[in-house]
This record gives sequence, structure tokens and C-alpha cells, in this order.
Amino acid sequence: MTTRTRCWVPGAERPEADFPIENLPWGVAERPDRPGEPRIVVAIGDAALDLAEAAGFGMLEGLAPRIVSALRMPTLNAFMALGRADWSAARAHVASMLSSGAGGIERHARRDAVLLDRAALSMRLPAEIGDYTDFYASEHHATNVGSMFRPNQPLMPNWKHLPVGYHGRSSTIVVEGTPVRRPHGQTVASDDGPPSFGPSKLLDHELEMGVFLGGPANALGERIAVGRADERLFGCVIVNDWSARDVQKWEYQPLGPFNAKNFCTSISPWVVTLEALRPYCRPGPVRGAADPPVLDYLRRGDDYVVDVQLEVTIASAGMRAAGTAPTRISLGSFADMYWTMSQMLAHHASTGCVMRPGDLLASGTISGPTKEGRGCMLERTWRGTEPVTLGDGTERRFLQDGDEVTITGWCEAAGHPRIGFGRCRGVVMPAA
Amino acid sequence: MTTRTRCWVPGAERPEADFPIENLPWGVAERPDRPGEPRIVVAIGDAALDLAEAAGFGMLEGLAPRIVSALRMPTLNAFMALGRADWSAARAHVASMLSSGAGGIERHARRDAVLLDRAALSMRLPAEIGDYTDFYASEHHATNVGSMFRPNQPLMPNWKHLPVGYHGRSSTIVVEGTPVRRPHGQTVASDDGPPSFGPSKLLDHELEMGVFLGGPANALGERIAVGRADERLFGCVIVNDWSARDVQKWEYQPLGPFNAKNFCTSISPWVVTLEALRPYCRPGPVRGAADPPVLDYLRRGDDYVVDVQLEVTIASAGMRAAGTAPTRISLGSFADMYWTMSQMLAHHASTGCVMRPGDLLASGTISGPTKEGRGCMLERTWRGTEPVTLGDGTERRFLQDGDEVTITGWCEAAGHPRIGFGRCRGVVMPAA
Repeated sequence: MTTRTRCWVPGAERPEADFPIENLPWGVAERPDRPGEPRIVVAIGDAALDLAEAAGFGMLEGLAPRIVSALRMPTLNAFMALGRADWSAARAHVASMLSSGAGGIERHARRDAVLLDRAALSMRLPAEIGDYTDFYASEHHATNVGSMFRPNQPLMPNWKHLPVGYHGRSSTIVVEGTPVRRPHGQTVASDDGPPSFGPSKLLDHELEMGVFLGGPANALGERIAVGRADERLFGCVIVNDWSARDVQKWEYQPLGPFNAKNFCTSISPWVVTLEALRPYCRPGPVRGAADPPVLDYLRRGDDYVVDVQLEVTIASAGMRAAGTAPTRISLGSFADMYWTMSQMLAHHASTGCVMRPGDLLASGTISGPTKEGRGCMLERTWRGTEPVTLGDGTERRFLQDGDEVTITGWCEAAGHPRIGFGRCRGVVMPAA
Repeated sequence: MTTRTRCWVPGAERPEADFPIENLPWGVAERPDRPGEPRIVVAIGDAALDLAEAAGFGMLEGLAPRIVSALRMPTLNAFMALGRADWSAARAHVASMLSSGAGGIERHARRDAVLLDRAALSMRLPAEIGDYTDFYASEHHATNVGSMFRPNQPLMPNWKHLPVGYHGRSSTIVVEGTPVRRPHGQTVASDDGPPSFGPSKLLDHELEMGVFLGGPANALGERIAVGRADERLFGCVIVNDWSARDVQKWEYQPLGPFNAKNFCTSISPWVVTLEALRPYCRPGPVRGAADPPVLDYLRRGDDYVVDVQLEVTIASAGMRAAGTAPTRISLGSFADMYWTMSQMLAHHASTGCVMRPGDLLASGTISGPTKEGRGCMLERTWRGTEPVTLGDGTERRFLQDGDEVTITGWCEAAGHPRIGFGRCRGVVMPAA
């Protein structure tokens, strides 16, 4: 067991808390008494600290004016744009406000005006996401899916040389809790068609991690060195990249997934900073002896993976009505990736592509070597041939209307407290 | 020859003018005396009308306050969001200001403060582009390219059933005139690798048309009927979707083009409205007897194509220094498409994907049935095997550093004046 830094906020010292003082993730929320005025907040225990309000009461004095001004904005974009030194200074300031030492607000007259009941907040997207990119960086996932779609060549020749990715749709990224409408699309009974148009029958989730970029945008044509990628990584969220597998199978050749993915992508609202994640990083990824060397522009001596444990559960509408606990269907780790966040960013920007603060890079489905480690239904039920059984006795090959998919993520490491990401939930609604 | 509506603005009545009073395209510019203050402008003859300034002088009186307020913004997004009736009202108002009749500003004391020398303006992107989507809607292009990459199956089974598209990168869309840096990337000498990293050797342009979306965004999960798509089409621009063919060949399987396309996309700055394009629309596309019927959600009785003539020229650095005229290498028409703008939008939104005002849909490379109608170097030189000769006697298989690629577009129809799009230029800069 680890001794926590003392924090007086209710819930911050519970051993299973997602948001102890060592975490301090950033988010954007509307408070019930100020609807329509989104503001930057930090999660702490069962509460959240309202930074806009805190600034108004002078509680951010000591921070540079550019930081205070960024923290009064309705999204995190301006704060993300500042860079690592300022992120760290703001985090240290918030930690001191919430600790029992000097600078703490425990006995401040305005404490209850800035420290809100977290459960009462309406969370918003943390940033205006300019561009969203989805990678395909788990070897187990790429091999599993590749073997279904292309049995002769599960991994393409390029896969171990570059982090394969594609551009996603930013207009349909939503914060967790938003219902997910089953999409319509073209699907086929046989490989060559003809297609019919109707609700997708093979709706799936994808367990992913995403990283929000920060720091000033690189200029058009300017690359980002892999060794300096950390300067541009602001923090991580859980991503559920909902997918319509029947639509995907018919549409994806030759330009990749399009409508199969653009109807909805859910993210968890709390952005856990790279600084908070540092104790849970370890050198990696570990490559096999047969794996090709990576090219110089993707190689750094001190690269790392982050050991975030990730769990997927499903609760049917009936289970929720009956109070039955959700059924766990996957458990994996973000450490189990072939390509790192640094490599994804360096590769993406290797063309001189402009990477803006607030842009989101997602990992692609995270799957581990075991059956339980598979991060989507397509893999978990092996294309529907090995259904999973939920707590109400019903079977699932793919998602059904009314199913609630919840992804949670947390980190543990010897000598450090557990920190968590909160949850990323979505209930499947019938096609309209 | 057609008699033009009388317009007193210099250059507006020249027969070859791009911007007669029948056009009135929208743009965003900085004027030399107000740097850092982008404003909405309308091109007319050799001039441009400054709407922000006009609003300040009360010249927009008579328009609804929501329209005037949208026209004072630094981008067109708010105006695009208003919808067709308001776009039309604003256009009619501008036309009356520039005509000799009542409401004209020819003798207004402030005329020279609002009517600017168009050549002196610094054009900006017309809108903040939330999401950029690129289609693949020309049958000749898809067949040509498909036959190079997949000789056994040039057109995939899906191609004639849905407008194939993919999500592009919005952060690197630039206004014409911005230099284009030759990107680095992974390329291979043989199909299976190993790859090396360095400047792309096979840089290409792609001749495309783009349509900016307008109207209020549809809600998440709400489809857009193909018959109502016009309500969401604001206006068109020329698009040059620069491509690194050697990077594309290695990376594109299985998730589609990524780094091969994300380094730069150039657009022309003047958005020609669908209302201005109406006289140049004709029923279409005309399908062959062997082509499959399209599904109901993509079918409307009154669908149309737009006959925009499109020309690509190249001028090497030497040619420009010597004053040699650029060499025309392609001439095509936007009418020559298999899928229409309505169909692209209806398909895109058929999943309930949110389409926002300011989003950009591009057609994909526009190629016609003849060699001269091919809209990119890959096709025009048939993968480099049939080089083109420029006006300085040098050959081109793909683009070389210093080459300036210029795309122009214009419309002609009996009984109507010529209108044009202006130009979409870019000079290739050496890799850095």
C-alpha cells in the first residue's frame, strides 16, 4: 500500500479513487447553477475545482497571466497551446490549493463556490478538436482483424515499419454518456454485392486510448522530432471508436474506413496529463528479435509505453433495469502496443503536417495476446462465432440496442497511488 | 455573345472576366491598410467589396440583422450557417449595390472605402474548415488509378454503388498561393520493403472541385435526404489535393491514404455560390445501361452536375523567370462525374454524421475520357511512362521543385455570361 499525499477533499484519499491529488486531470463542464457557461475544471476526489471561478476570486495569483487567462476560457485549447512548463506550473498550483499546506483553500471563505460536487456537473468535450486521427497500433488487434479480412496476409508489409493510421471525423466526437444511434449504411450479403441500405447489424465498440496534443502548432512543412514529441503530448483520455462492421467490410476498399466510423466516437471527459502518468510509464515497446528495426525518424532511446489498465463491460437494458452488475468482456493494457504515442506523432508530422493544440490522436483498438484482452466484439467473439454471455444469460455476437458499453481505465505502480480516467460510457439507441 | 447586366465596377464587363455581377463569389481577405483584420469580401470585376466596412457605413440596411451580423465576422462560417434564403437575400443586396439602379453605391461618398483593388488583398481561407472529406467520384480517375495499383480489379465492387470517400486533414488546407513543401515519407524500392525515409520523389497535384457546406448542422444521428441536399450546399472552390504517390503506394493498405495527402491541400479563395452556378447545371450524371441502379437514399429525380471547365497548367521556375507562358497539361469538366455533390452529402450523412457549416467536401481527382482530360500527373503521364513536355523543353513525369501548378475554372452556357473561379496556384518548394 502507498501512503497518499494528504488531501482534505472528500473522496480524494479513498484507495480506489480515480482522482487523488496525484492525478488532477483537466476537463470542461457546465455547473448546474451556470448553464450555458462551460468552464475548465479539475477533478479531485468526489469534487471538481472550477478554475474560472477560482480565477475570479484571485485564487490563481502567482500563476503567469497567460496561464490564468487560458484557464478562464470555455475549452482547454488555449491552455493546451501553452506548453509543458505552463501545464506543470498550473498543476502544481492546483495541487497546492487542494493540499493542507500553504496556499490551500480548505479554509478559504469562497471554498464552496469553487469546489463543486463532481456528480452534479455536465461534462463537455475538453477541447475543440480540430483534427482527429485514428491509428492501428496494436499488433494483436491488427493481426486478429487482418486474419479475418485478409487471411493470406493479416499484417501488411508496411505494418511493422510505420504506425498505420487514417484521418477520422471530428464533428461526431462526443463526450461519454452521449447515446449512440445505430447507423444506417450499405451492407452486402455476398462480397460483390449488390448492397442494401438499412440499419447496421454488426455494431461494435473499439477500446482505445487517445492523446490530446498541446504546445504551439508546428508550422506547415515543419516536422516534429520523435525525441521532442513529449513537448506536444498534453494528456490522455479513453476513446470508444464505435464501428459498423458490416458497413466497413463493404466500403473500406480502397480508401479505408469512412461511414463505418464517422457516426460517433466517444471519449472520457477527464484529460489525464502526461505528468500524472509518468510513474506508470515504462521503457518500451519491447520488440521481438524478428521484428525489423524502426527507421531513425521513429527511434528514440528513451521511448516508453504507459501501463493503463483498460476494462470493457456491457450491461443490457434488462440488466440495468434489474440492477444486475455489468459483465466484463475485456481487460487489456495500453502498454501492450507496438507503436508509441511519440512514434505516432512523429510519423504523422513527418510530412510537415500541422499538428494543432486540441488535435486528438487515438491508438486504434487495444488488444492483448489473450482472448480476454481483445478490445472489440469483432475480435472478442471472433466475428460472431464465439459469442459472449452477459449477466442476464443472453448472448452477444455484436452490440444490441439498449446495450450500455462502459470502458474504464486506471494505473497502478509500486510506490504510487492508483489513478484513474473515470469512465467512457455509451448506450446503443435503435436506428431512427 | 451575351449582353451583361450593366455594372460600373472596372473589369466587371470584360467578356473574359471571372467575376461579373452574375457571379459575386464570397471570400475572406485582409486589406493592406487593416492588416490582421480579416473580413468578408465579394469579388466584382477587378475589385472586391468589403462587407464589414459596408456594414459600418450602413450600406447593408434592409438586410436582416442576423445577416449583417454574420457578414461582419472574420470568416464565412456564421454566414454559411444561415441557409439559402439568407444567402440569396445577401447576394441580391450586393448585386443591387454594384448595379446602376436604385441601391447602387456608384455615387456613394464612401464608395472607395468599401470597393477595394482586388489585387492588393491578401486572401485567407474563406472559412474555418471543421472537417474535410475527399471523395473519389470520377469514374475515369478511379478506373485509371485502379488499373495501375490493382490491374485485376480497377474498380472495386462497391464503386458504382456508393461514392467512395475518406476523411482528409483540415489543418493543412491552405489558400492558393501558399508554397507547397515537398514532404518526407517512407517509400520502397520493391513492394514488400524495406522502406527508406526521405523526400518524396513522386509529387503530384490533383485537380478537384470542393463544396463548402452551409445551413445549420444536422443533429448527431440525423440523416440528410438527397432531395434536400441543396439546402446544405453553399458554394464551390477549386481544390488541389497535393499527393506523394510513392508514399501513398506503401502506406495506403489497409486504411487508405494518410501521410501521402496530409501535407497540403490548396483551395481557391473565392466561393462561387450554387445560386451563381445554377445556369451551368444540367441534369445528370448520365449513367450507362450496364451501370447498376443507385439505392433510393442516393436517388433524386432532379439531380444535376455542374459544367465547370477546369484547366491545369505547369510553369517551371525557368519558364517563370524567362516569361514563358505556362504549359497546359489538362482540361476537364466537373460535369464529367459519376457521383453528384448531393449524393456525396447524402451518403456522408446517411450514418447520421454531423455536417457543419464550413465543412468541405472535395470531389476527388476529376478526369475525363481523353488523355488531356486526366487530372493528375500519375494518370496524365501514365505513372511516368508517358512524360509531358513543358514550354521550356523539359519533361515531367511528376512535379519538380520550383514547378508552379495553376488550376483555373470557369463556366459558360448559352444565354449566360462566363463566370470564373479565379485560380488555385502553388509552387513546389524543395524538401527541408
